Amino acid sequence: MIKKVLKFGGTSVGSIERIQRVAKIVQKEHDNGNKIIVVVSAMAGKTNELLSFSKDISSNFNNRELDVLLASGEQVTCALLAGALINLKLNAKSWLSWQIPILTEGDHSNSRIINMNIEKINNFLDKKGIAIIPGYQGISSSGDTTTIGRGGSDATAVAIAKIFNTDSCEIYTDVDGVYSSDPNKIPVAKRIEKISYDEMLELSSLGAKVMQSSAVQTAMMYNIPLEVRSTFTDRNGTKIFSQESIDYTKSVTGVAYSKDDAKITLIGVEDKPGIAANIFEPLNKSQINVDMVIQNISSDQKTTDITFTIKRDDLIKTKKILELNKEIKYNKITHNDKVSKISIVGAGMVSTPGVTYRMFKALAEDKINILAISTSEIKLSVIIDEDRTLDAIKKLHTVFELD
Amino acid sequence: MIKKVLKFGGTSVGSIERIQRVAKIVQKEHDNGNKIIVVVSAMAGKTNELLSFSKDISSNFNNRELDVLLASGEQVTCALLAGALINLKLNAKSWLSWQIPILTEGDHSNSRIINMNIEKINNFLDKKGIAIIPGYQGISSSGDTTTIGRGGSDATAVAIAKIFNTDSCEIYTDVDGVYSSDPNKIPVAKRIEKISYDEMLELSSLGAKVMQSSAVQTAMMYNIPLEVRSTFTDRNGTKIFSQESIDYTKSVTGVAYSKDDAKITLIGVEDKPGIAANIFEPLNKSQINVDMVIQNISSDQKTTDITFTIKRDDLIKTKKILELNKEIKYNKITHNDKVSKISIVGAGMVSTPGVTYRMFKALAEDKINILAISTSEIKLSVIIDEDRTLDAIKKLHTVFELD
Repeated sequence: MIKKVLKFGGTSVGSIERIQRVAKIVQKEHDNGNKIIVVVSAMAGKTNELLSFSKDISSNFNNRELDVLLASGEQVTCALLAGALINLKLNAKSWLSWQIPILTEGDHSNSRIINMNIEKINNFLDKKGIAIIPGYQGISSSGDTTTIGRGGSDATAVAIAKIFNTDSCEIYTDVDGVYSSDPNKIPVAKRIEKISYDEMLELSSLGAKVMQSSAVQTAMMYNIPLEVRSTFTDRNGTKIFSQESIDYTKSVTGVAYSKDDAKITLIGVEDKPGIAANIFEPLNKSQINVDMVIQNISSDQKTTDITFTIKRDDLIKTKKILELNKEIKYNKITHNDKVSKISIVGAGMVSTPGVTYRMFKALAEDKINILAISTSEIKLSVIIDEDRTLDAIKKLHTVFELD
Repeated sequence: MIKKVLKFGGTSVGSIERIQRVAKIVQKEHDNGNKIIVVVSAMAGKTNELLSFSKDISSNFNNRELDVLLASGEQVTCALLAGALINLKLNAKSWLSWQIPILTEGDHSNSRIINMNIEKINNFLDKKGIAIIPGYQGISSSGDTTTIGRGGSDATAVAIAKIFNTDSCEIYTDVDGVYSSDPNKIPVAKRIEKISYDEMLELSSLGAKVMQSSAVQTAMMYNIPLEVRSTFTDRNGTKIFSQESIDYTKSVTGVAYSKDDAKITLIGVEDKPGIAANIFEPLNKSQINVDMVIQNISSDQKTTDITFTIKRDDLIKTKKILELNKEIKYNKITHNDKVSKISIVGAGMVSTPGVTYRMFKALAEDKINILAISTSEIKLSVIIDEDRTLDAIKKLHTVFELD
């Protein structure tokens, strides 16, 4: 008998009809002889509605009460889905986080699940019960309602998979898997059948918002097999495993991109220890998120050029900080605010020679100028002119046989 | 230092602006040096919205899950009001029913509050804290979420007043008190300053839906002084006390009425013991609510005439049951489906001679025909033709100096 966590996101439970569709999926999994724990998000739009209520009261709404407010969203879905399953003559029951309990630590609106009681629910599953649990929330050691950050229902699902030691964790959503790039914008993008946790993390941190990254990280840490699949079709989704379990036929798994970036270059920075820290510490203090950082040695070998990318919205603020800070010495500051970042991601890259070369050659063939390069074990990112974004993604799909 | 329960109904918290208005009222009461426990309903329309979700899933939605679903409504209001108060620099905090806890017994959707823990909240009040508590709900001994029936927030407020031994219990609503009759329909109706529990019960069971009856009953049982007042004006409301505390200057406090009634008369019913039970048992089984019952002795003194009133919607069903039931023997059945019931209510009636006579005389003066009469200690009801309802209420207001 297999024990499964099925998690349904906000669009999957966004209306009564959709909740009834979810009930049918759960019924089928149950009738196949599986033990089922279901995790649900709030109905699509609900969390934003509640959030806007709080903002109408105060732009600085109290965090403890915000958690009480937002936690109501998943409670509603839990009760509706449990009711829909009972209506199908199944033994279903909602378990709110204080009833289990799901224990968290950390600040309000940003807690982490640290433990939960498994006995009562395991007994219930043994009696063919289907447990419905709200995602995104828990209670603190002081007995307060807490939430675990936007998209936190994925984290709840993975935490349950880990603590209940389930055989799988299936993330039902409105797309039928992870794609080699955003299928809405890149028609040639293809669904990926199997992907490693690392690749998934690189892809999701680069814009493919299928699953919350910290949930993928937790799954990776405890080696919990995941599957991302659609609530609205019967097709198989994307399976997410550890790298070792995947037999790579392709070196590159997907092409991610992020827009709205800006590039800043400090030319002729004094080359001495601690200089990078001097530059990035004040930016960090001002909550400016620095993405890629590339350092070249300057032609005179006593100074260096430092290039980094930030969100375009932060450009003016960043330049002001750098220009006002007297501890940072450089000759010149330049920027380009119309750039995007294109990354090829693939756990097979490290063992496949020539991937880097093939990428550069492909872009050169199409006269796409590379403004900066950054590499990691499973990722190769380049900064290019923003208006060539789609051209580059399509070209890379062709070159690495993703389409 | 006075300890108060302030309860705010659904229309009082029906929007963010209104919740902010409620926060100002609570702030004022707190700044006056009172210890404040606030009980809130769900935002107006919310409970019906959730209920319609459940009905879209099943006309027979599971009761346990319905309670989980509906309880979310008051949770939202609690968090929003607590947030609004914190925004006013007050030390406010929401306490959900499982956090207190509020213990209930009885069936789902129809539970009764039996106890609650007072220590934590009393400590909080001692530190100038303002406790915000959801009405209408609690938890069962098995740890399930329960609700205590529509309008149950009044019952929560009275239960808190009793268990926390507060000095008063103020019910804030969208009307500024209890009126001698429905002020929307009867312009001459006047606000009542003081009323006894019994009178309030008679008035509310007869259509003046200002407070839930069972909450008034509980208040009467434990002699908890109530005040019904408006969230939207500063005017004093209606104070509800025990009968002994009220110095009656008037014999009649109010005039209640109910429309949509129908009257049935069974003429020539065999006059022997148990005959009334024979008639009303099958009606009860079919969930037909019989209101007034009047029995006259027939002219031949061997048979009797029995008149009773029911809701007009039940008329056809009721006649069918009576006609098909062979155990009920009578000569003739008549009905009138265009009647209404007018009642004068007043705790002072019993000690004031001539009230009955004055009522009949007043109606006769205006040629309003009385079709049936029923009396109790503090109430006198008559059935009249429906189209004379307003005439009768106005006339009785004049006669008993209510306008």
